[in-house]
Amino acid sequence: MMFPSRPMLCVITDEELPPVTFARQALWGGATILQLRNKTASGRDLCRWSEAILPLTRQHNALFIVNDRLDIALATGADGVHLGQDDLPATVARKLLGPDRIIGVSTGTREEALQAEKEGADYVGFGHIFPTGSKDKPLPPVGTRALQETASLLSIPLIAIGGIQLENARRVISCGASGIAVISAVSRHPDPRIAAEALVREMAEGMLL
Amino acid sequence: MMFPSRPMLCVITDEELPPVTFARQALWGGATILQLRNKTASGRDLCRWSEAILPLTRQHNALFIVNDRLDIALATGADGVHLGQDDLPATVARKLLGPDRIIGVSTGTREEALQAEKEGADYVGFGHIFPTGSKDKPLPPVGTRALQETASLLSIPLIAIGGIQLENARRVISCGASGIAVISAVSRHPDPRIAAEALVREMAEGMLL
Repeated sequence: MMFPSRPMLCVITDEELPPVTFARQALWGGATILQLRNKTASGRDLCRWSEAILPLTRQHNALFIVNDRLDIALATGADGVHLGQDDLPATVARKLLGPDRIIGVSTGTREEALQAEKEGADYVGFGHIFPTGSKDKPLPPVGTRALQETASLLSIPLIAIGGIQLENARRVISCGASGIAVISAVSRHPDPRIAAEALVREMAEGMLL
Repeated sequence: MMFPSRPMLCVITDEELPPVTFARQALWGGATILQLRNKTASGRDLCRWSEAILPLTRQHNALFIVNDRLDIALATGADGVHLGQDDLPATVARKLLGPDRIIGVSTGTREEALQAEKEGADYVGFGHIFPTGSKDKPLPPVGTRALQETASLLSIPLIAIGGIQLENARRVISCGASGIAVISAVSRHPDPRIAAEALVREMAEGMLL
């Protein structure tokens, strides 16, 4: 699986916004990965949204990833799935998805990240790096030192997640992350397209640090 | 796909009980279909439970069906999936599951039942037949007259669901249902095994009416 060589911006859908419109804005702003994430939506809705978002990602040469629901990914021809530690194991997902589709795994420690790589993940999400309001977080932020260390140990891309905003995107990339994943930094901005564009620019600056 | 010729007892797991223990009791009592249904459990848990329940169904010559999560069914080698009207469409599920695995579809009207048959369902759930406390039901019960009419129009088995208890199981079968699906009639009984056995007996009586 080929990822872009520039820093990746993974935009995750916000359950409080209509996902297709939001995806369009994020892609227009330069998102390289669009992840459909909705833990409460029905399979029917997820399927419909995926069928609408997939061609948008194609138009923008971006990747389309479905969170958790491997069946939705299979049914709609998505590029892959993103799995949490409570979702299907990556090894199981790999058998169903075959070698070519993308499997991303959420990790919160160096050990989880290395384990995910061992189990065949194509990338890991790693975080949360900073304090965040997006999800209930029982654990403290991992911080940029753990990010730097973990990124240096992995052969697969590490996408940093959790509390990443315009102000710290550059730093995260300079610590070795291959990209960032965001929800609110894009979804809560008055213009999600502009927010995404700014994040892409900041990450490019981070590459030069 | 072959279903048993005797009336089928589909026992659906109760989210408030440990599913594997409950499945064992229901199968011991003669359940012909065990359906794992849990709308809030993680994919990891559903996968683990399925891997534990599947061999139990094999021992009892019963079928194992996963509610909603086609990916869990695929990952664990279940006999099929049961899809609600808000889940993946049956046509989509069929493409992923292939011709041999079972697809059941929940229906609440004659039209939905005929549509499900047309879309390749192997059986329909039909109901709710009687008032029920198991799930929020915005619609009134369909009653036994609609059951009888719908069963007579279908070529595939109709499994009646909703408010079915020992007292009315016989009547439901005499109206043409190929079986019943229950949660509380088994799960809320002090001895689920005995409850399942009694339902199987009542349905056999209903065949003679």
